[in-house]
Amino acid sequence: MAYGMYVKFTTQAGTRDELVRLLVDAADSMNHVEGCQVYIVNVSETEPDTIWVTEVWRDAAAHADSLKLEATQSLIQQARPYIAGIEQIPLVPVGGKGL
Amino acid sequence: MAYGMYVKFTTQAGTRDELVRLLVDAADSMNHVEGCQVYIVNVSETEPDTIWVTEVWRDAAAHADSLKLEATQSLIQQARPYIAGIEQIPLVPVGGKGL
Repeated sequence: MAYGMYVKFTTQAGTRDELVRLLVDAADSMNHVEGCQVYIVNVSETEPDTIWVTEVWRDAAAHADSLKLEATQSLIQQARPYIAGIEQIPLVPVGGKGL
Repeated sequence: MAYGMYVKFTTQAGTRDELVRLLVDAADSMNHVEGCQVYIVNVSETEPDTIWVTEVWRDAAAHADSLKLEATQSLIQQARPYIAGIEQIPLVPVGGKGL
């Protein structure tokens, strides 16, 4: 079963663009991760300290495996100083364009 | 500038699957709409009356144009009875896998 989520990052004031850069780099590294189908980084025009990441994975195991990757661990360490909060909306993708 | 959104549909009790079918059909029709890059229908394991749609468009104009399509107008009419509420989180996609 496909596994998805919206991840809302609230950044420390004024650090959003640094975290965007790190997350887009992370997305690039996902190009080599077969189980990752979608990893889109979004900002908000109305909330300057908010980043939303759209994630779709082949299944929950593929997502769990990705957390063990060195690239992911390195991203988490680098991103930590910029993050004031993280919220997740868990999803089950059932169909559509872009899967 | 790319244009995106998360759309949360709250359905009338017990009608989620009918609306999912309509939205997946709408996603299929978006395969012929060049300005639509992503249209993914998601359900929630914890909220039985909730559907989330992830949308990414080439730009706001492409989205606006899609609302004039007969397929979209027909979807809106058919979907109306199933919808108890709609909320949108506007997004600006800035990069990632799946764009």
